[in-house]
Parts: sequence; structure tokens; C-alpha cells
Amino acid sequence: MMNKLHFIGCDKTYEESKLVIIGAPFDGTVSFKPGTRFAPNQVRLDSDGIETYSPYQDKDIEDISVYDDGDTEVVFGNKIKTLDNIKNKVTNHLKNNKKVLTIGGEHLITLPIIQAYHEFYNDLVILHFDAHTDLREDYLGEELSHATVMKRVHDLLGDQKIFQFGIRSGLKEEFDFAKEHLYIEPFSCNTIKTVIEKIKDKPVYISLDLDVLDPSIMSGTGTQEAGGLSFKELHNALLDLKDLNIIGADIVELSPHLDPSGTSTMVACKLIRELLLLIK
Amino acid sequence: MMNKLHFIGCDKTYEESKLVIIGAPFDGTVSFKPGTRFAPNQVRLDSDGIETYSPYQDKDIEDISVYDDGDTEVVFGNKIKTLDNIKNKVTNHLKNNKKVLTIGGEHLITLPIIQAYHEFYNDLVILHFDAHTDLREDYLGEELSHATVMKRVHDLLGDQKIFQFGIRSGLKEEFDFAKEHLYIEPFSCNTIKTVIEKIKDKPVYISLDLDVLDPSIMSGTGTQEAGGLSFKELHNALLDLKDLNIIGADIVELSPHLDPSGTSTMVACKLIRELLLLIK
Amino acid sequence: MMNKLHFIGCDKTYEESKLVIIGAPFDGTVSFKPGTRFAPNQVRLDSDGIETYSPYQDKDIEDISVYDDGDTEVVFGNKIKTLDNIKNKVTNHLKNNKKVLTIGGEHLITLPIIQAYHEFYNDLVILHFDAHTDLREDYLGEELSHATVMKRVHDLLGDQKIFQFGIRSGLKEEFDFAKEHLYIEPFSCNTIKTVIEKIKDKPVYISLDLDVLDPSIMSGTGTQEAGGLSFKELHNALLDLKDLNIIGADIVELSPHLDPSGTSTMVACKLIRELLLLIK
Amino acid sequence: MMNKLHFIGCDKTYEESKLVIIGAPFDGTVSFKPGTRFAPNQVRLDSDGIETYSPYQDKDIEDISVYDDGDTEVVFGNKIKTLDNIKNKVTNHLKNNKKVLTIGGEHLITLPIIQAYHEFYNDLVILHFDAHTDLREDYLGEELSHATVMKRVHDLLGDQKIFQFGIRSGLKEEFDFAKEHLYIEPFSCNTIKTVIEKIKDKPVYISLDLDVLDPSIMSGTGTQEAGGLSFKELHNALLDLKDLNIIGADIVELSPHLDPSGTSTMVACKLIRELLLLIK
Amino acid sequence: MMNKLHFIGCDKTYEESKLVIIGAPFDGTVSFKPGTRFAPNQVRLDSDGIETYSPYQDKDIEDISVYDDGDTEVVFGNKIKTLDNIKNKVTNHLKNNKKVLTIGGEHLITLPIIQAYHEFYNDLVILHFDAHTDLREDYLGEELSHATVMKRVHDLLGDQKIFQFGIRSGLKEEFDFAKEHLYIEPFSCNTIKTVIEKIKDKPVYISLDLDVLDPSIMSGTGTQEAGGLSFKELHNALLDLKDLNIIGADIVELSPHLDPSGTSTMVACKLIRELLLLIK
Amino acid sequence: MMNKLHFIGCDKTYEESKLVIIGAPFDGTVSFKPGTRFAPNQVRLDSDGIETYSPYQDKDIEDISVYDDGDTEVVFGNKIKTLDNIKNKVTNHLKNNKKVLTIGGEHLITLPIIQAYHEFYNDLVILHFDAHTDLREDYLGEELSHATVMKRVHDLLGDQKIFQFGIRSGLKEEFDFAKEHLYIEPFSCNTIKTVIEKIKDKPVYISLDLDVLDPSIMSGTGTQEAGGLSFKELHNALLDLKDLNIIGADIVELSPHLDPSGTSTMVACKLIRELLLLIK
Repeated sequence: MMNKLHFIGCDKTYEESKLVIIGAPFDGTVSFKPGTRFAPNQVRLDSDGIETYSPYQDKDIEDISVYDDGDTEVVFGNKIKTLDNIKNKVTNHLKNNKKVLTIGGEHLITLPIIQAYHEFYNDLVILHFDAHTDLREDYLGEELSHATVMKRVHDLLGDQKIFQFGIRSGLKEEFDFAKEHLYIEPFSCNTIKTVIEKIKDKPVYISLDLDVLDPSIMSGTGTQEAGGLSFKELHNALLDLKDLNIIGADIVELSPHLDPSGTSTMVACKLIRELLLLIK
Repeated sequence: MMNKLHFIGCDKTYEESKLVIIGAPFDGTVSFKPGTRFAPNQVRLDSDGIETYSPYQDKDIEDISVYDDGDTEVVFGNKIKTLDNIKNKVTNHLKNNKKVLTIGGEHLITLPIIQAYHEFYNDLVILHFDAHTDLREDYLGEELSHATVMKRVHDLLGDQKIFQFGIRSGLKEEFDFAKEHLYIEPFSCNTIKTVIEKIKDKPVYISLDLDVLDPSIMSGTGTQEAGGLSFKELHNALLDLKDLNIIGADIVELSPHLDPSGTSTMVACKLIRELLLLIK
Repeated sequence: MMNKLHFIGCDKTYEESKLVIIGAPFDGTVSFKPGTRFAPNQVRLDSDGIETYSPYQDKDIEDISVYDDGDTEVVFGNKIKTLDNIKNKVTNHLKNNKKVLTIGGEHLITLPIIQAYHEFYNDLVILHFDAHTDLREDYLGEELSHATVMKRVHDLLGDQKIFQFGIRSGLKEEFDFAKEHLYIEPFSCNTIKTVIEKIKDKPVYISLDLDVLDPSIMSGTGTQEAGGLSFKELHNALLDLKDLNIIGADIVELSPHLDPSGTSTMVACKLIRELLLLIK
Repeated sequence: MMNKLHFIGCDKTYEESKLVIIGAPFDGTVSFKPGTRFAPNQVRLDSDGIETYSPYQDKDIEDISVYDDGDTEVVFGNKIKTLDNIKNKVTNHLKNNKKVLTIGGEHLITLPIIQAYHEFYNDLVILHFDAHTDLREDYLGEELSHATVMKRVHDLLGDQKIFQFGIRSGLKEEFDFAKEHLYIEPFSCNTIKTVIEKIKDKPVYISLDLDVLDPSIMSGTGTQEAGGLSFKELHNALLDLKDLNIIGADIVELSPHLDPSGTSTMVACKLIRELLLLIK
Repeated sequence: MMNKLHFIGCDKTYEESKLVIIGAPFDGTVSFKPGTRFAPNQVRLDSDGIETYSPYQDKDIEDISVYDDGDTEVVFGNKIKTLDNIKNKVTNHLKNNKKVLTIGGEHLITLPIIQAYHEFYNDLVILHFDAHTDLREDYLGEELSHATVMKRVHDLLGDQKIFQFGIRSGLKEEFDFAKEHLYIEPFSCNTIKTVIEKIKDKPVYISLDLDVLDPSIMSGTGTQEAGGLSFKELHNALLDLKDLNIIGADIVELSPHLDPSGTSTMVACKLIRELLLLIK
Repeated sequence: MMNKLHFIGCDKTYEESKLVIIGAPFDGTVSFKPGTRFAPNQVRLDSDGIETYSPYQDKDIEDISVYDDGDTEVVFGNKIKTLDNIKNKVTNHLKNNKKVLTIGGEHLITLPIIQAYHEFYNDLVILHFDAHTDLREDYLGEELSHATVMKRVHDLLGDQKIFQFGIRSGLKEEFDFAKEHLYIEPFSCNTIKTVIEKIKDKPVYISLDLDVLDPSIMSGTGTQEAGGLSFKELHNALLDLKDLNIIGADIVELSPHLDPSGTSTMVACKLIRELLLLIK
């Protein structure tokens, strides 16, 4: 069928696939410059511009089976229902023994995904790449926001389950909280191997906020924060994870229209390919 | 004081001014491409590029007194409180015998403004220039939205108080409602003089959604709808209003970043100058 | 199924549909600024931003049945095979008693479509809206090109079967040829009603090169030629066709990336909606 | 020789040409958004995208002889010397019995050109298309500026020699001056035929500030002023001039980089072609 | 007061502040691509997108007192008077025992600032980060230019008072002069600690031309010169200065409109925050 | 002569020059986002923004003699003839004892250049910097394509004559072929000195596909592939070549319009300056 839009190489049937892609085009909580709802389909469209083969991993998406399940339904103006839809969708896939890679949307979508995963993997750990701590108790009075999402995840998982890398913006309180209740490497990801050693027996979920990258390579995101990881730094950190038991991942906060050169979307496409090959 | 940002020429004191500008940088309900919260200050900045003198009206902003009161406080994630802030701000100015021109923000900001005006002017009529009817009962389950704002205004004012021009997009139900309960001229504004005749004794509020303009001249708006008014058509319709008792106005839905040439913001600046000279 | 990308409202089954959309993302012959191959899917994506209801025609795409068949296969570097694929696809749909609306791609794709139609409708006439005559015998030695496509159509259909509107660029030879062998109204489309009178008993195919529009509203096209039709002029001309026996149409030469504001793609979406409602 | 950059079709020798193009890439006096110095060469480059044949005039640049003399030398930081260079260059061409079309640069370049022409044609009249009066006595203390250029031309030529069209921005004083000392049609160019009647025996110089066009079609200019002429309105006015004794022209204030779609540069190219065919 | 535009967190009174921000929106001497006059206000507007807390320095702008004094008056077309205005403004603040951070504008604005500082600190040294030497004796005949500014500073301060980093473009003569009369580390800033050792007892002024950064992260500047410092390299060099007696700084040559993604302005905002926390 | 467009400093006569620049504005085989045909002239235009002196090499283009021969003729739609034109042009220059630097255009233009060089230098080796192997046997059935060009060069030169750096995208088959038949360093260029040692007695031709650079610094290319070389990495590798016998070079795949900031074109200009100074 010609008019099925899917990520390049991800055209297998649901039955033969262990890995499923979903889109979560939600950007309902306010960030500085919005537009992430356009990311999932723009990523699928532009994925035609990359190869399915990764010379880094010497693997090809065509050789694993991935099903692209399209987007979850977003109910505009109804954040609760939208998050429920995401949780239900992910829960169904987990029941069917699939692993899920989600393309956001804003970072709040990570919360319902982890809620779903937590019911199946109760010793779950989170690798969190981001420019921001996302650890506010509330953001302008609101408890469910892209700026609070990791605090809500901590509410659910408890201490020492979240490992943060590349963080370089937040309130002093957030940094203080992070130092006490979870693992944080601000500014970089040089300690990834130490962390891998700690979590190698655990089920690992990766939450990748693209603004962890330097805006030189990722200008298409709502809160561009200079001093981020280079593509190679992030990519190498991801490649280091290859022997972990990765059970799911998300990639969030791409705003395609903010980068008229299209580079940011191409970067997301390449990282999704690499994540697919790491998970499977 | 150098660092007071105000619309060009609008640097009089509050006391000496009969006309007040406020900004309402709210874009909390979702439209196709967001970004209107950046409009009020971008408009103030770029207003340096226009003259204060209008050769069309042979009047100069410098010769009337206008006070720029800055922006109302937006409480992100709390639509109700944000709308209340707008209503209270406008009410205060009306109590002080001022007229108010508001720079949006999205179209929903018109609702609290009209709620405030209605308490002072109970026979108020609304001139509404827009590409969209904005007459949905609810939008995706939500009753307070840019897509429902004129339905809410109708709830408040009742039949035959709203006069719509340039409308060219909506549901069939919306067009049917408009034909029955208010005045609608779809696609154009050729009947403006007939309407003026009808409302000449009433206090008139102007709500100007910039997407009523054709996107050839106004690409910097979230839902670009071709087939709109040319600048001259809209401008001439506004000039026709010069003998009406205009008591307030808003200009909404400018998304400056969507138009990298900056033309859209300059168009908004020019229309604001013309409205200021019409009101006062 | 979530991940079927289709034009808004065009989600009916093939069997229940009399009207079929196909994409022809081919831009193999060289124009000044290329990129039309990205048009069909970008149009499908952005069609979410328009309503399915046309207040101009008081009709809704949801109320007719349209099937979006996705894109024909483009064999890069093999123009002949690509054109054959288009012809075969169209032929199959015509055999099944469907009508076809094609989203280009460049203008050369019109040739195989008309070759297919001509086998089913041998008294076919062509309404051709374009900035350019496209009547060169060859273009830089090449007989199959966007600049020769209407000459090739004339080779097939013969004299007085092509009616051109809005033409404002070409060689002197092309204008001379047009005046002798077909109908041409340069610069505008004021005579559309006269032409309608002439062709009202014939099967009519519409070929709409978007550069017929003025680049003020359509900058996203490869050869921007000022002095074109306004959106309203073109749209009104199309609405005038409503009683004709329209059997198919194409809309070509949109290059989405050339217009960073996205207006051009939105214009194409609206015109496609209007054409769908005219054909069916 | 391959690497001579010239306007399309303007590759004749100096000797055989009666018409000469020069560039004046000067933008030394401050406007709102600068960049006009890039115009002459960008126009030459992009002129490849238009035809040499005008279907409006049924004439071809290839059939007349035009020499493109490249750019005059701009001495950055030395306005006086730069203006002298322009005057000298034009004077030399006039001595050789050539006519000159100049591509700006900002509008101040018109002053030395007219100084040169005035020595050869002392009953010269000026047709001035512009959004702005350019009639200030001084601009921020400076007598030589894009905002004063027509006042300086008036100093030289005296009353009733300048005919302004499309003017829609300026100080009240400027409009008052214009009404008294020269001909002004604000906002439009509907009276062009009346003016033609008045000046038909005079040598006519055309000064075309591209911002006379509406920014919908000409966003690539430093002071975008809505409510301008459409391309067709301007173009038709120019075609009306065909029987006048046009002895020279300039086209100024294009800032190519402000319009990323490239439309503005293409509009300038088309107008230059039409002017070349009008002059010669 | 809502409509005071100030850099985020810099809303203290003049009296309580030891540190003052001024803008110097001057771009009167010609660079390749102009537009720096828009920088100060665009920086203030977009500073809303960063946090006031620096995790690098563990300090918060809210905890120090900074007053934003707005912009100095620019007299267009009168460079001398404009530079005098800057000098006078800075002198006044120094008399009041304030330190000043200036947001340019082009690099020439550094000259009057240093003239003012020199009267208060006669053993002043300059840390100069730049892609260009700015050491021409004159630029196209002009002695006061962004390309000569450091030569003029050298005229004032004499040998071995200027320390240049990151320089990678200039005439051979400029590099020769630098090697003889001042300190220059071309291409990088690896020797910053050695220099700190040398100047640790002196009052230090920082002049930061943003084009010292690689254009991958700073494309919004007039003369993009590849091979520059990464954000981290520059930022680390600045953090190294924390024990110096920094008495003032400027940040110049941001042209916001050249970078449509807005990244460049966000980079400037972050660097200004870091500089404010370093100075105070 | 003013209107000769040439790369900055390359204005010597053919006779006095040992080094010749040609442009090959061909982009006939399809890449993801086309537009390289605009590169040679845009590079020439924007080269005004760089200095002729290289502080890295302490050399100046003004001190060597370079002739800019303009562009080879491209026959649109006729790839074979276009490639022949390039081969003939290069052959003529080689006969005259010149060395040639070619500005593409797409990568396929390297084939005819190497065919010409091979007749004069039969022990030629190729240094190939690229993101892609370009080693497909055919691309969508076509043997002459930007994706096959290095396979065609290998057909001509045989094993171990091509040295590839920075490669990070391709089919598994291409990487396997590269490892067996030529030298490949994927992802980086750290082994350049080892390779220099191997080839130091050979005539060396450099083929530089600009997408070898990371898209953070080179977004203006058709297939942006993250994880590339930084400008400094590439530049340092080039500087390492200074004692080799470099007999020619090309720089390909710049698409100026894809990078609205203009950075990509400026990067190309700087690399061309450095290559000119290395060759001569």
C-alpha cells in the first residue's frame, strides 16, 4: 500500500515485529517556542533521506522487524485524556510482548509511557538525556508539564532510578534535588560507562530530549540551550549502551519548522535508526 | 526612560491618555501553528519602522494621547486565571474612562475583553473580521477556545449583535448558525456601509483576527486561509468606520516567527496605528 | 489504521469511491528551482490544517467518497519508466470507472495522464492554467520536459483542444503557436465563461500549474513569475466550471520548501479540496 | 567569456549598444533593514530564471542591444566619493550617447544620476514610484539620505518636475510640500495617463523604488509598507509609458536576503526586462 | 510596570545595583551583512527563554542587583555624536560607581566605552575575543570602523594592553602588528590561563565579538568565519576568568535576523547571563 | 572590467596563471534535496566576504596567480554531453600546463575531471572526503550518478588508488567493497598522516564533498548526515597535505539556498581559498 506513511524500513507486519514505533504528536503544555506536534510525521517523511543500514552498528533496519503503528490520538485541550491514550496504547503493545519506541511530541508524553512500562517492569531504570532537569514540583501552578515530567517519574519510581546526562539549565532547587535523589551528570555524558556498570542487570528505558544536543546541530527545538552535546558525543554514549537490556525509548521535543534547513529532522531520523537497532 | 518598550508614539502618561494599549500574549488553546504569544512585544519593537503620521486619515499618533500599559499577566497552564487577568485589566481601564486597544495573543482573549465592556456598554455591537466563524459550540470537547470564542460572545450578547466579514472557513453548522443568529458576509467586506448604517448609534467594538487578510500579505498567522481580503480592502473598510462610536478594539492571531520576512508584523503595526487614530 | 497518510477527508475505501487521488512525486526534468517531488506528501500532511467543508460550494469532502491511493512509483534517473508507471496507474483507475486527481510533481506528469485519459475519452479537452505556455518543441534538445509538455499533449490531441489561461512567459514562437493551434488568454482568465460555453458538452480535464498564481500567494514554486492570478481570480474561474463534465485534474509544480511560511502548501490544499468537490 | 556576469540577454558590446546597465551597490545611509548592496549581482544571477522575451510588449532583449557595464565602485564609509563615482560613470555614458538603467542600491543613488542627466537634459521630468515621499529636508541631521533624495532632486530641478505615485508614508510636512511643489498621487497610480499627457514632449526619467509595490509581492525591501501597488498595477502603469521619450531609469531598494523565497529578486528581474524594452 | 523591557532578572533599581546594562544599537560602519542594531532589544525579549540561574557558576541573576538602563541614543548618520553619547552614558555610570555591560551594536561601540573606562582605570587591560584582528589603520579610508576599532584602542592604551583570542581572519599586516604590539593567540583560546596569570592584578575589560564563535552555533553575525570556538571552548575560557577583577564588558556583532532559528540570539542571552555573574 | 564575476583575488590573466578555477553547475542526477547548480556563482559572489590572506598558511591568493575561467556549459537533460564538456575543458587546461580547481555542482562531475587527469597522470591517487561511499554499482538502474561516482572512478583507476575519509552512510555492500578495494577511514580523518606517508611521491587529486562536514556547519547540502567532521578537523587534515604534490581538486554538493543564513556558502569560500593556496 503506497500511502502508508512509516519510518523508513519499518514496514513489517505487527505479528512479525518485536519492536513498534508510535507517534505522540502532543504539545499541549507551553514551552518557549512550540511546534513538536508536527514531529512524528515529518520524521517519517524525511526518513527517506537516510539509509536503513548503520555502519556504526553494522546492522540494518531491514533485517530486524519493526512495525510503525502511526500516531496515538491527541485530544486537543484535554491533556488527561491524551496522556491516557498514550498509556493505553503502550500498555497494549507491552501486553503483546512488543517493545515501543515513541516519537514525541513534548516531553510530558514520557510520563504515561513510563507509567505503562512500570506495570510490566517494576525495577525499571531511566536514562535521561536532556538540557533541562525537568524536575520542578510544578510549573506555573501546573503539576503535569514538560518542566515537571521527571519529578512525576520520580514520584512513581522513587530514588536512584533516574540517570540524567547533559543537563545544563534549571532552578537551583532542581539541581539540588537531582543531586540528592537521582544521578546527574551536568553538562556532559562522560560517566556513561560507570552508569552502565551500575544498571547492567536492569531493564533500561531511554528518554531522549533532543535539546540535550547543542543547538548548532539541533536548532529545531523549543528551548535552544547552548553548550550541549555534539552529535558524536551523544551518539557514542548511545552506542555504549549496546549490551544493556533496553526495553523502550522515546525521542522528544523536535520542532521541525524552527529549523528551515531541515537538519534537525534529519538528526532525529538518524538517532531513531540507531535507537531501533540498539533496542532490537 | 529608555527601556520602556511601547508602541511608537504611545509614550504619554496614563492620566493624559484617553486610549490605552495592552498586550495579551496568550496562546494557550491549540491552533494549527502556534506562536501568537510573541506578538505584542514584537509589534512594539518593529513599530519603530512605521511613521506615526497616517496620510490616509491625516492624523498623527503624536497628536493624540495614548498610553501603552504593557502586557497582562499570562498564567501558563491556567487559562481561566489568564482570562480573568485580562478582564480585570480592561475593567480597570474602563472604570477610569479609558478606551482599550488590545494586541493578542490568540482570539480567545476577545472573550474576557467583551465581558468587561459589556458591563459598561450593554448595547454593544461587535464588528468581527476573520477568516473563520469561530462559532463552534465546543472544539474537541473544550468550550473556551479560539474556535468557539464568537459562540461564547453570542451567548453573552444574544442575536444580531455580531457582524462578521471575510469569513471563509468553518463547519457547515457554523455558517448555518451565523446566518440565523448574527450578520455574516462570507469571503469579503463589501457590505460594510450597509452595516454602518444599521449600527451608527451603537457603541462599536472591533475584533480583528489578522487571518481575515489574504496570506499573501499575512503569512504570519497560524491558520493561513487563502482567498482573504487584500490589505486595501480591509483598510478601506476600517476607514469607512470613522464616524462610528468605536469604544475598543483588538487585533489578534499574529505569529511573528512564521513570516521570516517580517512583513506580517509590519502590517499589524500599520493596522494598529490606523485603529488608534480611528478610536480616538 | 493510524499511519495511513491521506488527504484530509479522503479515507474511504476504493470500492465506495468514484474519485481517486494519486501522487506523482517526480521532478526529473530540470526547472529553475527544483523540489516538487516533496509536494504530494507535504500536501497530505498539511491538509490537516483546512476544513473538509467548502463554504463556497456548500459541500463537504466527507459527504463524497474519495480514496487516496498514495504515490506512483518514481524510478529516479528513468523518466520513461516513471511516466509509464503514471500512465498505467491512471489507466487502471479509469478501467474501474474512477476519476483521478493527481498531485505533482512537475508538469511533465500531465502527459502520461492525458495519454491514459485519451484512450477512454477521445474528444477530451484540456483547461490549462499556467504562467508558461509549455509549448516548446524541445527544451535544450529534450522532447520530454516540463517546458514541452503541452506541445506533446497537442501532438496527441490536435488543434483547438487545449485552452490556456494566465500565460505570461514563453518564447515568441510559443505564443505564436498557441494563437494558431489552440486557445490562449494571456495574463488572465477573464474569458473563462466564453470557453465554458464552447466546451460544455465535452469531457474536460483540468491541468493546474500552480505558478499561474501570482508569487505573492504562491512563492513555493520553481519559476516564480510575477503578474499572475490572485487566489480569488483563479478560484472564481474554477467555481465557474461547476456544471462541466470534469473527468480528471492535476495540480502541479508546488515546491513546498521554497516557501518557509507554509502558505503555498496551504493554498494547494485548499485548491485540491475545491477541485475534489468540483469533479465529484 | 563564461565568467562575465550580466543581466540575461545583455551581452552585447558597448559599441553596438545604445542602452547600458550599471549597478550601484550602495547602502550607506541607514534604513530600517539594510542589504540593498547585494541587489545588483543577485539580480544578474537570478535573471537566468526569466525569459528575454516579453509577451506584454512583444519584444525581446536579444533583439535590442544592451551592454551590462557592471558595478560602480563603492567607497565604503565615503558617501561623497561613492556618489561622485556614480555621477561620473553616468556622465561618461551620456557623453557616448548611451541611455542608462541603474540597479541600486538604496534610493540616494538616484541623486548623482539625475545630477548627471540634468547636465544633458535640462527640461528633464521625473516619474517617481515609491511608498515614501523621500522629501525630508534632512534625516536625523543629514541632508544626503534615502529619506531626503527627492527633496535634493527638487532643489536641483525646481517645482513641478517630479511626479510621484503610490506614496503612502511620510511626515505631514512632506505630504504638504509635495502637494505644493510637485505632483503627487498618494496610494495609487490611477492618474498616470493624465500625467503622460502633460509630459509627453519632455525627456522622462523613471525612478522606481521597489517598495511602491505591496509587500505581499515585494517583501525583500527594507521598509515594507502595506497597501502598495499590485504587480499588475505597477506593470500596467509602466506599459502606459511606452510612447514617452524615456531617457533613463533606476530600480532601487531591493534587499534580496530579506525574502528567502527569492520572489522579490525575480520581480525585480521582470521589471528590469520591461524597463529595458521600454527605454530602448 | 509591565512594559519595561529588560534583560531577564535585571529589574532592580539603579540605586541598589552595582551593575548596569546598556544597549548600543549602532551599526553605522559597513560590514558584510548588517543588522546589529536590532540586537539589544531582541536579546532582552528572548532572554525570557533562559533561566536566571547558572548551574555553571551556581549563581542567580536574581541574587545580584542589575539595572537595565535601556539603549543609548543613536544619531543615524552621525557617527561622532553617537559614539559621544555612548562615552557619556558610560562615564556617568562609572562616576556613580557602577560597572557596565554593553550589548551592541557593531564592534566600533567598544571604542567610546574604553575611552570612558580609561579615564577611571588607567592601567586597564582588554581581553578581546574575536574572529578578526580589527587592527587596520584605516578601512577604506575611514579611521573609525569596526575593522579598525582595536587599532584605535591600541592608540589609546599602548603596547601589551590588549590580549586577543580566537583570531582567524585579517590582513598579513594586522597579524604582524598584533604579534609585535599586543598578545595574540590565533584560532583558539588555549592559553587563557597563562594570560590570566599575567593580568591578575589589573582591572580587566572584556570585549566579546560574537563572531569568535564558530558559525555553526553563531550564524547570526555579519561576517561568518568558520573554524571558530565552540560554545564550550568560549564558555570555559570565560569561567576561567572568575577570580579576575572584571570591571566591564561588551558583547557585540549579533545580527538576530540572519539566523531564522533564533539560536544565535539565545546564545547571546546565555553569554550575557554568564558575564553578568562573572562581573558582579 | 567590472562585471567579470570571479572568486576573490582570482583576477589574473590566463597566461600568468598556473591555477585555473572552473565551475560545473550540474545537478542532473537526483539527490534528496537538489540545488547545487547555483553553487559556483553564489560562491563567487559571496567570496567578497572573506580575506584573500590565510593566517593558517601565511599566504595570500593575491600573491599567486589564479585565473577564474567561469562555468562549463551544462546541457540540461543531456548528462553525457555535459560530462564531456567538463572533461574537454579540464583536458584543455591540463594541455596548457595548468592545474584545475572545480566548483560543483553535484559529485558526478568528479568523474570526467578524473578521466581527463588520468590521461596526464596515470599513477594518480584520489583523496576523497565525503559522508557517503558513493560506491554503488548503479543507483536505481543508473550507472552514472552522484551515488556511483567513486565506483566509476575505481573502474578507471583500479584498486588502492582511492583514500576515503569521513564516510558514514552507505549500503553494507559499499562498505565491504571499500574495505577490500580501497582505503577507507569511516567517520573521521584521524589517519590522514599515515596515508600521506603512503602517497607522498604520487600526484594527488582531492575530491571534497562538502557533506563530509557535520551539518551543524554545513546545512546547505542535499543529504545532511549528522556525525561529520568539524570545520577544524577537515581544515587541519587539509593543512597536513601541504607537502604533497596536489595537482587538482574539486569541491562539490553545496546547495546554497538550503541554508538561509549563508554560512554554508561562506564555509565553501574559505575552503576554496585554503585549497588554492595548497595546490599552488
